[in-house]
Amino acid sequence: MPRVVVDVMPKPEILDPQGKAVLGALPRLGFTGVTEVRQGKRFELEVAEINDGVLADIEKLADTFLANTVIENYTVRVES
Amino acid sequence: MPRVVVDVMPKPEILDPQGKAVLGALPRLGFTGVTEVRQGKRFELEVAEINDGVLADIEKLADTFLANTVIENYTVRVES
Repeated sequence: MPRVVVDVMPKPEILDPQGKAVLGALPRLGFTGVTEVRQGKRFELEVAEINDGVLADIEKLADTFLANTVIENYTVRVES
Repeated sequence: MPRVVVDVMPKPEILDPQGKAVLGALPRLGFTGVTEVRQGKRFELEVAEINDGVLADIEKLADTFLANTVIENYTVRVES
């Protein structure tokens, strides 16, 4: 079944406490070399078929429901 | 700066209440055509450079810290 992926990430200028918490934990866990971590959400939507109408619907869905566009960016893509 | 993306998703056989909540809300919002929704996490890690050691570290990090491998699958990929 075709799958559409919506990635939702905090905007670059928005503080990301979850990402900061992960980043802060890395040295204690022995991992070095990672300089920045951002944490967001990934949605996998299964649809009956892919067409322009469905993609427009999912775009609108992402814009109004899955992401808070005041603080988050999103991308919509068809997973191959 | 090179970026590595770690996607963490609930395993297919695991109940995903967040995804179910989104799926249940769609008809009320006027969206049809989506048959399944799974919600997971997306981590964007910035690293100084990409090499085999760094990727092995991030793989281990994902396996032990970012994902709970009892209930979640993860993928690690370099973002082009």
